[in-house]
Amino acid sequence: MAAPAPTRSRRLLPLSLGLFQAVLLLFFALFVTYDKPSAQAEDANLVANQLYGIFPLFQDIQVMLVVGLGLLLTFLPRYGLSAVTHNFLLLNFSMQWALVLQGLLHHFHHGQVRLDLHNLLTAEFAAVTVLISVGAILGRTSPCQLLVVAACEVPVYLASEWAIITRLGVLDVGGTITIHVFSCYFGLGVSKALFGAAQRSMHPKETPTPRSDLLSLMGTLILWVFWPSFVSVLCQPGDAQHRAILNTLLAMSASAVTTVVVSSLLERDGKLSPSHLQNGSLAGGVAIGTVADMAVPPAAALALGSLSAVVCILGFRFLTPLLARKLTLQDQCGIHNLHGLPGILGAVASCVAILVASEDISGSRFSQVSPVGGNASEAVGGQWRDRGAGGQALWQAAGLAVAVGGSLLAGLLASTMLRLPCLARPPEQLCFDDSLYFKFQDQAESPGPCGTDEEGALALKEQV
Amino acid sequence: MAAPAPTRSRRLLPLSLGLFQAVLLLFFALFVTYDKPSAQAEDANLVANQLYGIFPLFQDIQVMLVVGLGLLLTFLPRYGLSAVTHNFLLLNFSMQWALVLQGLLHHFHHGQVRLDLHNLLTAEFAAVTVLISVGAILGRTSPCQLLVVAACEVPVYLASEWAIITRLGVLDVGGTITIHVFSCYFGLGVSKALFGAAQRSMHPKETPTPRSDLLSLMGTLILWVFWPSFVSVLCQPGDAQHRAILNTLLAMSASAVTTVVVSSLLERDGKLSPSHLQNGSLAGGVAIGTVADMAVPPAAALALGSLSAVVCILGFRFLTPLLARKLTLQDQCGIHNLHGLPGILGAVASCVAILVASEDISGSRFSQVSPVGGNASEAVGGQWRDRGAGGQALWQAAGLAVAVGGSLLAGLLASTMLRLPCLARPPEQLCFDDSLYFKFQDQAESPGPCGTDEEGALALKEQV
Amino acid sequence: MAAPAPTRSRRLLPLSLGLFQAVLLLFFALFVTYDKPSAQAEDANLVANQLYGIFPLFQDIQVMLVVGLGLLLTFLPRYGLSAVTHNFLLLNFSMQWALVLQGLLHHFHHGQVRLDLHNLLTAEFAAVTVLISVGAILGRTSPCQLLVVAACEVPVYLASEWAIITRLGVLDVGGTITIHVFSCYFGLGVSKALFGAAQRSMHPKETPTPRSDLLSLMGTLILWVFWPSFVSVLCQPGDAQHRAILNTLLAMSASAVTTVVVSSLLERDGKLSPSHLQNGSLAGGVAIGTVADMAVPPAAALALGSLSAVVCILGFRFLTPLLARKLTLQDQCGIHNLHGLPGILGAVASCVAILVASEDISGSRFSQVSPVGGNASEAVGGQWRDRGAGGQALWQAAGLAVAVGGSLLAGLLASTMLRLPCLARPPEQLCFDDSLYFKFQDQAESPGPCGTDEEGALALKEQV
Repeated sequence: MAAPAPTRSRRLLPLSLGLFQAVLLLFFALFVTYDKPSAQAEDANLVANQLYGIFPLFQDIQVMLVVGLGLLLTFLPRYGLSAVTHNFLLLNFSMQWALVLQGLLHHFHHGQVRLDLHNLLTAEFAAVTVLISVGAILGRTSPCQLLVVAACEVPVYLASEWAIITRLGVLDVGGTITIHVFSCYFGLGVSKALFGAAQRSMHPKETPTPRSDLLSLMGTLILWVFWPSFVSVLCQPGDAQHRAILNTLLAMSASAVTTVVVSSLLERDGKLSPSHLQNGSLAGGVAIGTVADMAVPPAAALALGSLSAVVCILGFRFLTPLLARKLTLQDQCGIHNLHGLPGILGAVASCVAILVASEDISGSRFSQVSPVGGNASEAVGGQWRDRGAGGQALWQAAGLAVAVGGSLLAGLLASTMLRLPCLARPPEQLCFDDSLYFKFQDQAESPGPCGTDEEGALALKEQV
Repeated sequence: MAAPAPTRSRRLLPLSLGLFQAVLLLFFALFVTYDKPSAQAEDANLVANQLYGIFPLFQDIQVMLVVGLGLLLTFLPRYGLSAVTHNFLLLNFSMQWALVLQGLLHHFHHGQVRLDLHNLLTAEFAAVTVLISVGAILGRTSPCQLLVVAACEVPVYLASEWAIITRLGVLDVGGTITIHVFSCYFGLGVSKALFGAAQRSMHPKETPTPRSDLLSLMGTLILWVFWPSFVSVLCQPGDAQHRAILNTLLAMSASAVTTVVVSSLLERDGKLSPSHLQNGSLAGGVAIGTVADMAVPPAAALALGSLSAVVCILGFRFLTPLLARKLTLQDQCGIHNLHGLPGILGAVASCVAILVASEDISGSRFSQVSPVGGNASEAVGGQWRDRGAGGQALWQAAGLAVAVGGSLLAGLLASTMLRLPCLARPPEQLCFDDSLYFKFQDQAESPGPCGTDEEGALALKEQV
Repeated sequence: MAAPAPTRSRRLLPLSLGLFQAVLLLFFALFVTYDKPSAQAEDANLVANQLYGIFPLFQDIQVMLVVGLGLLLTFLPRYGLSAVTHNFLLLNFSMQWALVLQGLLHHFHHGQVRLDLHNLLTAEFAAVTVLISVGAILGRTSPCQLLVVAACEVPVYLASEWAIITRLGVLDVGGTITIHVFSCYFGLGVSKALFGAAQRSMHPKETPTPRSDLLSLMGTLILWVFWPSFVSVLCQPGDAQHRAILNTLLAMSASAVTTVVVSSLLERDGKLSPSHLQNGSLAGGVAIGTVADMAVPPAAALALGSLSAVVCILGFRFLTPLLARKLTLQDQCGIHNLHGLPGILGAVASCVAILVASEDISGSRFSQVSPVGGNASEAVGGQWRDRGAGGQALWQAAGLAVAVGGSLLAGLLASTMLRLPCLARPPEQLCFDDSLYFKFQDQAESPGPCGTDEEGALALKEQV
């Protein structure tokens, strides 16, 4: 039934991916080692305690990215397997790619790159940006195209993250600006350059079913539960981390309640929209990242959570259709509503929090640990004290501008490579369809769903 | 296709919920702060260690309530989205509401309420009672009615918990009496007062499918895995907590095996009933809560787990139909079988354990930490020593009586408010149906399931 | 519609299982106690810290076995409930059975068996072997037969584990040889003896649907995320555990990428096979277990992960059909490809790692903790130093030989008992069908899927 795919370009994916894995292996063999046990810590208990502190949070984040985000993307009823698989593949590819780049940039001393769980974590954060960005083009791109996006986005992210955190000294412990805002506008840039020429009508396979909406909602809930781990994993242990957890919990709880309120007000008959629920409940977690570890009052976390859910749902209801009509901008998962708008809101909130605070509210110990090492963060803490509140607020705004501008530009540029014909963009009628990427076993022997005999009807009922 | 819902009352939910969120925000802004860092702990390591002790268990409980319980409720095949969403909304609403009430009652010092992860945890426990209670009326009530239940139940729970733990000195570390028994009879009281007048026949949309039973069973398994965290989170760290974990693991393992035995014996042909499996496997976790941290022998945990599974399944097979026939009592999820009967069994078991023990088996450190603060629990430990075993056993029985009587009465009273016509109870033919609460995208473009062309049949097969 | 099952033998399952639970209860009542608090640790903080170290990993493993493995087995579209339930029942039965046997063998001092979380963990490892083995005969065996497999396999595993780890001093911290290789060949032995006589054609209910493949893939992803906990839980805290986590993460990431490469190269049109993805992504975790805690370079972990994915997928594509044709060997889940081949590869890798290393790479503290107690492992560490690298590599090979030979033999022997007619092997036409083991509520009232009225069509669409 499927149209004959261009077989030659189908070989491109395994060959290029296999080559990447081989080169990575070579790089690791030549340059990467584990930290020497004795060099770092004489006390095994200390190592164990540090491990117990970070490893459970690391696992939580893995669950979020692999299981939670994977499920969230299954709202396209015939594209579930592809969405989950591409998400999983991109996570692994981008993480390995980020490990190489990070190693070359930051950790290359005496011809060796030292690897520990903290490196893997920051590489995973780089991969998150890719997973968010490709939400804008879900279902209309081939795996090859997605890998090109990943290959381009990871180095740009590392540069942008270095500029925003290390050079500008922006405070952003939960990655609101560096991860969410950045990846959103990168994804929109790619989508605009790739699909932006023509209006397109609704694809018949694009409509979620109640069943696919339920699976997707379970993904949202998994993300919702573990989001505090994502925000707080890079905080200094102790009070700042405790505060980051509490602020995130409050913001997400407010988001959940506000989502029901706003979605119910906007829809006819007071019904809820599944997509509002799937995204709005998480908006608070996106926005809180800039201020989570600051000594802001709990009410601020609640307010920020509520506000970001409002902004997110209004975006789905009004902005996305507007952008599609005026700018022919496609945003399949609504990443602008979940990551872009709440991210900008979070950046603004951090300016307000810094301006309102009479003193340094970042705590006695500075909580930001950037991937470039512990020394940078202390320097940042010092910068705030030197700059004063007004100065720091300005730098926050500058960081936001860098994230938006840089990522939009980079995304537009990156997508020029995506239009190479060898990357096998799927034809329109095969978009959103697993059968293009998966070989299913022949089902000829199973009774057809609408056979005339009762056996067939019964079989279907049981299958359902 | 859906009957025109009373639109005016459909506005009640978002407006009242929005008002609640605004008032809560005001309350937080005026009164709630985080614990000052310096006031409490000079040593950041100590704070971090305490956090690492409680936070993973807190996350486990969040997974149980949001993902596990949500999935468990999806056994109604066309009501999955609503069940999961209402569960999620109620959890957040009740938790916030409990934070306000707890703040006013217990933590209000010098015009300030101090918030930490422990407060959030006890507020979450208050929310659990709501989530359990509404299982009795699942699918036949509007979200507005559910919120009224939550608004009434949380203060009653806090009062009952205070009476049972602080005043009576009942030992109940896992919430068997204060949470499970209480919420069960509160829910049954509400159900009786709301639906009790008339017999009703089986609703056609009430029947689970193999597919919805499978999703629901996955919810059971998630609850089963994380239950030890729920029981042990409030124990004193150390031996008592270790014992609580082991006792819960043994009880739940015995429940799982016994459930298969008993369900298989009761059904024709030795088949299993999915609902028995979904509930019986968890009965041991409900019952063990009273004695989990006591120094009871492991065999007692096994026996209690087995016995509670037997009681739970016998309840499903014989008691629920009997109550429906004689008392016209509706219990949609069978909460009486999962929470009521095993809860009573657990309370009786605690009396027996106390009477049999020759000495104080609650351990050298007392393990009960009530939401009212650490001092109360030491007082309780002292009470037992003063009272002797016979006295303490009597107080356990008294606690059970308070939980059953108080909650039944409060539930009956609360349901008077539920019958207000503005709360928009769903009409009978739209019960158990997501389409009453969710706006699904138009599916006109997708091929019909029984179209005459092969394309449609194929499409359906793939969808399934 | 279901054929009348042999009712008399249907009583065998609950009666024998009930008897087992009763005997177990008696054994626990007579012999098992918890560790005395005061005897072991005066310092409650120490106990708490040890608990915080092991308990989160224990929970991760529970999630893997109950939720992850359960979901992985749902790829048979009409057998999901049975697969999940049998997996859950076998886990509990085998764990309890292993506790009894371990108690009798190892922990029986002064007439008492002392129980702690570590015992439960090693008992769970014994149960894992059963869960893997029955993958070979999934869907074609009755629960009674599965329980007989469990009853036979657990003691053989304990003996084999004692021989390989304690007597031969094999290094295998992640259970590659003792768990994966052992259980694979035990399962194949059982399958051969049970079904090996006749060729069989494809069963019509055996074909996965896109929907069942998606659920199964979610199971894979859950296993993939938590696998590092499985490999590292028995390591010495500190550097060895840190290394085990990193090595496992790298191996599994390489497996994931390589699986996409190889599956895409093998299938026509570059499509992916769902079953390759479901299994190949995990192959690295199986293989890395022997060397995870050794000070091998990170590149070795990557290479081993890639290689094991290649071997696994080649096994699915070429070896499984070959074995089915030549040896009439049935392997429903492909356990030989996921556990057998990567396990052997891991054993070989450990020999190579030991031979290549110039010095003792097992670390200053030896990381292997066997179920038989801490003293054995130190003795093993000593053995290596005494034996030299060549000697130790030989012993690793000997351990592999014992695991393969012993388990094949034991599996063949065990299956003689499985052919007892009272064990009610399901008839061919009812294989892979939940309706044989589950009582579903009558669905007569719900509208048929292919009714002539629009209502029925709509109902079906919503159900889907």
